[in-house]
Amino acid sequence: MQVGKQTWRFPSRPRITGSATVVGAKEGEGPLGSWFDEVERDAYFGENSFEKAERIMFERAQRLAAKKANHSMEDVSHVIAGDLLAQNISASFSARTHSRPHLGVFSACATIMESFALGGLLIDSLNSEKVLVGASSHNSTAERTFRYPTEYGGQKPQTAHCTATAAGAAILEAKGDGPALTEATIGRVIDFGITNPWEMGAAMAPAAVDTLRVHLQATGRSVLDYDLIATGDLGRVGHPLARQMLLEQGIDPGHQFTDCGILLYNENQPEVFSGGSGPGCCTVVTLSYLLKKLKEGKNKRILVIATGALLSPLTVLQGDTIPCIAHAVTFEG
Amino acid sequence: MQVGKQTWRFPSRPRITGSATVVGAKEGEGPLGSWFDEVERDAYFGENSFEKAERIMFERAQRLAAKKANHSMEDVSHVIAGDLLAQNISASFSARTHSRPHLGVFSACATIMESFALGGLLIDSLNSEKVLVGASSHNSTAERTFRYPTEYGGQKPQTAHCTATAAGAAILEAKGDGPALTEATIGRVIDFGITNPWEMGAAMAPAAVDTLRVHLQATGRSVLDYDLIATGDLGRVGHPLARQMLLEQGIDPGHQFTDCGILLYNENQPEVFSGGSGPGCCTVVTLSYLLKKLKEGKNKRILVIATGALLSPLTVLQGDTIPCIAHAVTFEG
Repeated sequence: MQVGKQTWRFPSRPRITGSATVVGAKEGEGPLGSWFDEVERDAYFGENSFEKAERIMFERAQRLAAKKANHSMEDVSHVIAGDLLAQNISASFSARTHSRPHLGVFSACATIMESFALGGLLIDSLNSEKVLVGASSHNSTAERTFRYPTEYGGQKPQTAHCTATAAGAAILEAKGDGPALTEATIGRVIDFGITNPWEMGAAMAPAAVDTLRVHLQATGRSVLDYDLIATGDLGRVGHPLARQMLLEQGIDPGHQFTDCGILLYNENQPEVFSGGSGPGCCTVVTLSYLLKKLKEGKNKRILVIATGALLSPLTVLQGDTIPCIAHAVTFEG
Repeated sequence: MQVGKQTWRFPSRPRITGSATVVGAKEGEGPLGSWFDEVERDAYFGENSFEKAERIMFERAQRLAAKKANHSMEDVSHVIAGDLLAQNISASFSARTHSRPHLGVFSACATIMESFALGGLLIDSLNSEKVLVGASSHNSTAERTFRYPTEYGGQKPQTAHCTATAAGAAILEAKGDGPALTEATIGRVIDFGITNPWEMGAAMAPAAVDTLRVHLQATGRSVLDYDLIATGDLGRVGHPLARQMLLEQGIDPGHQFTDCGILLYNENQPEVFSGGSGPGCCTVVTLSYLLKKLKEGKNKRILVIATGALLSPLTVLQGDTIPCIAHAVTFEG
């Protein structure tokens, strides 16, 4: 059901009947470590390349999510998944073993909320019975795709992000126990002209602000109607910028305004820079810590605004600016 | 409305109220040349890189599709688009100027039918008013991504495909004149263990066969209920293989079984090898030639099974097999 031009409301309240998170060692050592289902100390996940490691991690999260929803992967009617690697290989290759009807999606680090939005729509419109949504990233695959191989040990500015080694998946169904997915706001591509790939927080902040503003307008709510509003991975540089831009537009995001990239790591962990990023970051923070707060009744309604920088290594080399996007999803307890 | 496990039926019959195709010189010289809206002789489309050329071509197709549907891009409620380049940059960057709510999708060369399937669902479930779906590819961006820069002039085996320089877009609406989108079958990821990236037709054939079989089962139809069944880009190697596999499964695909990759070029054009490929190939063949036959009443019902090889340059280097997918969409006059 359309509410405003960019927002869908799901009157049937699709439920998250199961979800799972698998992360790397560094994420396990962060403040949310105990909330994740599996922490893997081996960056290779027993494989011989980081790319194969990422897809194994993603597969483990998918199987565990299905299991926690009391299903097998074979019961899943649609998979909606994506990642950050060229040609979405983590999502596609992890889909080989279970071979379910597959919809590949891409919104960079905002991928999980595009998946949730479409998954909610499939359930709400009675076009699927059990949708699996998911996203993944791996620090070492992202580093060698976008920057330098981790083995090289290149230095980074403090505005950089640390791509999370993290994969998460959730099962959506029309009925069952679990938090409900009640709305989704599909973001627009917004480009403020930033060309520096070390400034992704600043580049993505305007997209997050635009999506939050549009979401509040469409739903007729204020930020106080949410117990928590989390951006995806703006980090310690981009998040204050987003707050400032919101204040300038007359929206006080208040104390409940936080960021998954900030939540994922302790500030004093080595090389986390301005915070976590990667499609896995917002995914595992949402599916562990944020959903748990809903399940425990500590929060009644939260909004997660996943943010994505839609650049590629090649667009950076060609001197292009960084188009960004943010998709928001409302979860209710 | 679900019909079987993998197929959606759209009872409201979303209409294609406008569509547009923009192609390169080689595609313009092929047998379908006169059916395309724009043929651009300059491979750079006036830009200074092939990647920028591709996004300009894609933007032109999108604007023209909106115009032919008597809308401006600003009227479009959702864009669902994808391409073959790393991090989907042609779709994302072409979205900067119009900045509409954006859903990035990826199914390699099957992307356009994933876009159509989701677009049909958005219209049918009343969650969008005007959806733009589209996909693009450019020979020179694909060549330097997956093989060698075109300037290098590397030799290829006859089983190779020629990635089309082609972009297409269509506007879907609940009402209006134009062919209707009545069903979509979402494919599964299928991997027959082929590792040779010059054998993509053979790699993709099993996915096309699986999707056609599942589609016929779900709809209770036979191939004779379609005036035409076109695979995406199996080419002159993969298409006969698909025919043979279908016959072995007791399905005679008959004379109306064709392939967009074969249709796009004349066999005697230089360096077309086994036929066209790339997300743009199936897109522009469908949106020009195939839809025209529906509009003119020569065909009443057609099925297009877009095929995608979900590999990346890196998975080839790592010796991986090639997972493939095929999504089918029914169009009716």
